[in-house]
Amino acid sequence: MTIKWVGFDADDTLWHNERYFADTQRAFHDVLAAYAEPHATEESLLETERRNLALFGYGVKGFLLSMIETAIEVSDGAIPARAIHHIIELGKMLLAQPVEPLPYTHDVVREMASRYQLVLITKGDLFHQEVKIAASGLAEYFTHVEIVNEKDVATYRRIFERHGIDPTHFVMVGNSLRSDILPVLDLGGRGVHVPYEITWAMEHAIAQAHHDFVSIADLSELADVLARW
Amino acid sequence: MTIKWVGFDADDTLWHNERYFADTQRAFHDVLAAYAEPHATEESLLETERRNLALFGYGVKGFLLSMIETAIEVSDGAIPARAIHHIIELGKMLLAQPVEPLPYTHDVVREMASRYQLVLITKGDLFHQEVKIAASGLAEYFTHVEIVNEKDVATYRRIFERHGIDPTHFVMVGNSLRSDILPVLDLGGRGVHVPYEITWAMEHAIAQAHHDFVSIADLSELADVLARW
Repeated sequence: MTIKWVGFDADDTLWHNERYFADTQRAFHDVLAAYAEPHATEESLLETERRNLALFGYGVKGFLLSMIETAIEVSDGAIPARAIHHIIELGKMLLAQPVEPLPYTHDVVREMASRYQLVLITKGDLFHQEVKIAASGLAEYFTHVEIVNEKDVATYRRIFERHGIDPTHFVMVGNSLRSDILPVLDLGGRGVHVPYEITWAMEHAIAQAHHDFVSIADLSELADVLARW
Repeated sequence: MTIKWVGFDADDTLWHNERYFADTQRAFHDVLAAYAEPHATEESLLETERRNLALFGYGVKGFLLSMIETAIEVSDGAIPARAIHHIIELGKMLLAQPVEPLPYTHDVVREMASRYQLVLITKGDLFHQEVKIAASGLAEYFTHVEIVNEKDVATYRRIFERHGIDPTHFVMVGNSLRSDILPVLDLGGRGVHVPYEITWAMEHAIAQAHHDFVSIADLSELADVLARW
């Protein structure tokens, strides 16, 4: 079937994101160095994030709150308020981080927009995502922008219905197999996987042999893949 | 013009919200009682919230982060980590607060849905708002749900365009003149103001004499107002 719609994930597909989280986490380990080994801090943070996910959802503010909670736990309440203030500053730096596009992003999105209707489908904090989309300078190329809490089959089905998108005419481009590719394949759409340099510990999914799905090294290969379908 | 669409605000229009923030703020003052007078804490918190708004946006997580920052400032760094942990617990209780509908909410929304197309237009944290909408049991009555960062003229215009809504057929029902009523009037729509018991300090707007706008005491008066238009 002809492709009419191309969906793009944003964080770690069009611009860097996880890299900044990793930097922040390293700085966080430094703040807690007097209380725990980095791997213990990391384990505790991941556990706190998991526990808080149902209450906080995804995004930097929830991550920051989980860092503060972890700092108190790991230090057994001994961490001084000044150090917590420093952690808040780390989170604010993460929120204020300029949008740094991945290679080819601007050219590829512009080119795709001349051939297909584009939809930006991104997960996380509404406010922060809108700020980043505006800062990216890419908003004009997208027919629709969808900021969602969870990228699962129900979410994609809702988006397809809302915009009258036939999944057989749709291909999703993203770095996460679990969030960007597998649910779209389940609905009869296609997927182009563009792995990012770092994979978030909670973002694991098993790659499946599927003829409606290809993996590319970076966005420069996208046009050719779509032209072949 | 005939009314075809009715927009509803959610927080403090369909269900209680500000009340819980006020309760949380009182408990927060208690935590800081050893360091500052309640009014000084309140002033400092409001100032911190204002300063953080461009970075955090609206919502409980940003409010919680501002409380923590205020606690550190007001105590001049003397507040112990245990007290900060207590503040985090206050914020989590606020996030986990069950949805408590305002009087007549369910009956009025159901009745309105039998006569008009309904749109829920609410501001704040995407994740928390979706959780509350799901918990309210009202989602089925709304043709569209829009969770937005800011309720200004540009936002309402975008919503009208997206769903093909002619503003002259639209009336917005909400507790905030600034967010729910004035921008809709500016676009040629109508407004029904349902004041809430508490008005948030940042939510002030001047009521204007306008024949496309009425104020009602509670939602039980809504059907009559709409029928008269």
